[in-house]
Amino acid sequence: MTVTNSGSAETRSRTIQKSVKKSCKNVCSVKSVKSLVPITTWLPKYNITLLIQDIIAGITVGLTAIPQGIAYAIVAGLPPEYGLYSGLMGGFVYLFFGSCKDITIGPTAILAAMTAKYVSGYSYDYAVFVAFLSGWVVLAMGVMNLGFLVEFISIPVISGFTTAAALQIASAQLISLFGMKGASGNYFSESMINFFKSITTFNIRDSILGVVTILILMALKRIGEGCSRTDGVVKQLRWLLSLARNAVVVIIGIIIAYILKVTTGEEPLRIIGEIGSGLPTIQPPPFSTVVGNETQNFTDMLQTIGAGSIILPLVSILELIAIAKAFAGGVEVNATQEMIALGLCNIIGSFALSMPVTGSFTRTALNNASGVQTPAGGIFTGILILLALSLLTSTFYYIPRASLAGLIITAMFYMIDYKIFARLWRTSKKELIYLIATICVCLLLGLEYGIIAGVVLDALVLLFTSARPSLDVNTISSAKGNVIVIRLPECLPYCAADHLRRKILKVSFKAKSDTLIVMDGVILRKMDTTVASNLMSVIKDVEKTNIKILFLNFHVSIKEMCNVINPKYRNKFVTSGSSIEDIVEVTVKVTV
Amino acid sequence: MTVTNSGSAETRSRTIQKSVKKSCKNVCSVKSVKSLVPITTWLPKYNITLLIQDIIAGITVGLTAIPQGIAYAIVAGLPPEYGLYSGLMGGFVYLFFGSCKDITIGPTAILAAMTAKYVSGYSYDYAVFVAFLSGWVVLAMGVMNLGFLVEFISIPVISGFTTAAALQIASAQLISLFGMKGASGNYFSESMINFFKSITTFNIRDSILGVVTILILMALKRIGEGCSRTDGVVKQLRWLLSLARNAVVVIIGIIIAYILKVTTGEEPLRIIGEIGSGLPTIQPPPFSTVVGNETQNFTDMLQTIGAGSIILPLVSILELIAIAKAFAGGVEVNATQEMIALGLCNIIGSFALSMPVTGSFTRTALNNASGVQTPAGGIFTGILILLALSLLTSTFYYIPRASLAGLIITAMFYMIDYKIFARLWRTSKKELIYLIATICVCLLLGLEYGIIAGVVLDALVLLFTSARPSLDVNTISSAKGNVIVIRLPECLPYCAADHLRRKILKVSFKAKSDTLIVMDGVILRKMDTTVASNLMSVIKDVEKTNIKILFLNFHVSIKEMCNVINPKYRNKFVTSGSSIEDIVEVTVKVTV
Repeated sequence: MTVTNSGSAETRSRTIQKSVKKSCKNVCSVKSVKSLVPITTWLPKYNITLLIQDIIAGITVGLTAIPQGIAYAIVAGLPPEYGLYSGLMGGFVYLFFGSCKDITIGPTAILAAMTAKYVSGYSYDYAVFVAFLSGWVVLAMGVMNLGFLVEFISIPVISGFTTAAALQIASAQLISLFGMKGASGNYFSESMINFFKSITTFNIRDSILGVVTILILMALKRIGEGCSRTDGVVKQLRWLLSLARNAVVVIIGIIIAYILKVTTGEEPLRIIGEIGSGLPTIQPPPFSTVVGNETQNFTDMLQTIGAGSIILPLVSILELIAIAKAFAGGVEVNATQEMIALGLCNIIGSFALSMPVTGSFTRTALNNASGVQTPAGGIFTGILILLALSLLTSTFYYIPRASLAGLIITAMFYMIDYKIFARLWRTSKKELIYLIATICVCLLLGLEYGIIAGVVLDALVLLFTSARPSLDVNTISSAKGNVIVIRLPECLPYCAADHLRRKILKVSFKAKSDTLIVMDGVILRKMDTTVASNLMSVIKDVEKTNIKILFLNFHVSIKEMCNVINPKYRNKFVTSGSSIEDIVEVTVKVTV
Repeated sequence: MTVTNSGSAETRSRTIQKSVKKSCKNVCSVKSVKSLVPITTWLPKYNITLLIQDIIAGITVGLTAIPQGIAYAIVAGLPPEYGLYSGLMGGFVYLFFGSCKDITIGPTAILAAMTAKYVSGYSYDYAVFVAFLSGWVVLAMGVMNLGFLVEFISIPVISGFTTAAALQIASAQLISLFGMKGASGNYFSESMINFFKSITTFNIRDSILGVVTILILMALKRIGEGCSRTDGVVKQLRWLLSLARNAVVVIIGIIIAYILKVTTGEEPLRIIGEIGSGLPTIQPPPFSTVVGNETQNFTDMLQTIGAGSIILPLVSILELIAIAKAFAGGVEVNATQEMIALGLCNIIGSFALSMPVTGSFTRTALNNASGVQTPAGGIFTGILILLALSLLTSTFYYIPRASLAGLIITAMFYMIDYKIFARLWRTSKKELIYLIATICVCLLLGLEYGIIAGVVLDALVLLFTSARPSLDVNTISSAKGNVIVIRLPECLPYCAADHLRRKILKVSFKAKSDTLIVMDGVILRKMDTTVASNLMSVIKDVEKTNIKILFLNFHVSIKEMCNVINPKYRNKFVTSGSSIEDIVEVTVKVTV
């Protein structure tokens, strides 16, 4: 039996050096330049079978991408065509730079909700400008390998943020769902207040359509359960109907609105109306905009966006990486590459009037379920959107706002993770508090502040936990005298110095005369000067009474650090086996 | 041999509950009310012997407190009498509420330097207002038990801050040292630029006096080395002369200035001039002030102070606690009590025109060396200052500015810890970077920003370190197949979830077919939902290939958390001995 070990304290610093060298090398190698454009890897092997599968998946996704695009444009407060434009460029750019076959890039509910604030407060230009800005930030973070920052957002915080976003988005749609008049709001509270204020303008026809839309969507989702692409014809049909349910309800809505128009000659339902048709004009993103009577320049726009210019990109990275991990199938996700692809999607998209885009969970899952083989599927989604933009805008004119509202609210209903509340209640009430705190701040102050609050709360608790490491105390009463062993943890950071000092003093006060206190450092790997100074200064304090202190099995580098701080106590460091008998033996030997 | 253990994972939560209960109880008990006013403990035992020792110590400290008070008022840009007023109330208030006999409360160089910005930019009123405000903040932090916040300032950051403060204070005195004309500056860089700009106004008489003052101070410090209060007469005299060196050089300066005035009829040296004599008027602290032609109200003043209203109190707490620990002699410092005392010193002091005060290291050391027995020593220091204010202001008129500058610069010279640079270079280069970064930010942007930068840097590095725990990997090749053991650390916080996932995937990719990966959780105590979710999701990814994964010796609460997240994998948790043989045995048994 042979045992090999990696990752010990000595090899660690060498590993770090190596990994730094490696990442420097990686940036420049031919292989990495090639891996920057993953299309170069899969395109040579592309064939007709793959093509057919990609076409089928691409079109299936397109059937969802079109109604979702329009819906998310509405969520952001933009004209519907912006949502379609946003679904276009993402797919084409990701085709070249993306490394996960399933991912579809486009507008998402959360990014739309985060953009809404700027659109309603300022102008449409802001949506495109935010996409451009966010693209550069994502790209820069990708190049600088800063993707690890999203690791500092814990699941309770992500879940709280998502729940709050869903509530905020859904609440903003209530006005449309019930055919009311008036604006909704940028925050959950504002939307709810406006909803109750406008409740008298309630319209029965829109309401019925809206509620029925929700019911149909829920029913269609259910009938698809347990069915897949590879089942028999009936099951396959159920599966397809379930997948295309967003398109189905929108088409039903259009038909109803059209019939009502033709039969009554009026437009009794509130519909989305005129949609700019045709391709978006290719133009530089807006670096200035007119708000009211004032022209805002680049700097003004940047100031308006403020902290959002970091948080929105971080959220888009978070969405993308989470989806990539979910669909990577055990393969490690190249986060850097994904971030570069996402950044380029946003930057290039912003030249074609795109709002901020990222990986969409619904459409990625759909893409995967439809059997997509390469990122080429995105082309066919794009072509379908292009066709819609060219031919169907006069049809889209009749989309009832209540249908879209129903569609959005249903999607939001499924976005919330209800089970996490019970799960955290059972396993970790502390984390339940983070979850609820994140939700509350999101709903009361806005999504950005909520996610910041959650991350800061998590980080502060982690810091405070580091400052209070657990210190096991074993009292050994033997014939040769009492020995108290304080077992030091793996890591003692600066902020634990005082805690350790207090613990030692407390132990020494309670100890009988002639007791020996042993600091067992066998698993201690990391310690800094602050702790070392405290340890060296506490010796004098403890040994004022008739108590001795010894440092057992300290790593040589930590021992050296202590000795540099106070060379006088060099002889207090001893080595022995780590069993209790060994400790008693060596310490009795030393003190005798 | 009996072994008792405290602090295991199970008992921890109970310990926390207990300590919460205890601290609630502590606030209300009679004992704690009594311990809030420590004078009630020592006054009943007070006697004539103690009184005589306290008088001697108090007067010795007074001899330093007077020149230092005047000097630090100058550092803050205030008229000299403010420094004396500040030395008065502190001692009287601390007498009642202070728990460490040695500590003397008064103005310090660092607090003076931090106050200087407001005085030079606005008005004298700001110094008193800052003392008042800072007093309330310190008191509130004391009552709320927030003293532990200073544990998050590591030694390299404290040292960098102190070094930068010393450089800043000393640089601001260069103009006075060389008898130049013109203002100095609020920052190191500004002071140095102003110094070189004004270098043509250099005055030879002041310069000689200033430089000679420094030399005398250094010589007097040296002759006192190795001497103490209890030595023979000669050594005792040397000791006394060394202790009173600040008073000595000021007196020499006064004599020279006076003689020059009498002989030449002019005032060829720059002297401090008129000092407001007598007691300070007792009046409420200024809640509004006039700056230029504008009146600033309470809110304006609060806004001006901004972040300083937290940082200045934190620094004063830091100074006090550090000194208290140094002189506590192994007894645990009651940080809460000290903070309450300090808060009251500042609040009550601000009614008698005091600038911010805290424990002074020099004078506390002097107090200790002079054999003080109780905080009553402070009364006699106070009385000496009162006498000086009543009788000596016409004498203080002649104090040469160059003498004071020499005194301040020498004190700053000794405040810097030169050895820490070499020590950190040898033991911890990472911490040397924090030290230098803190110094640079302090010198370039100001002391407040420097300490914030240092603390944030430390905290961020700690967070990143927590996100990358060391995971030992042991490969065991046995006849029955390969086993790879990944040893989990004591604590796996949310931010380590991705790192762990990547490690497991990496190990599984490299592993041969039929390998068993064992996650050894024997020392794992803390893990949160984020890590648990990642662990449960990685199983599926790993087991797609022909590799199995097992969770060995997980604590029951952690196992339960994982099972709630995914009950399907309940059978993957096994228990065995923790030696390699045991692991191989149990895992082979499970997989067969």
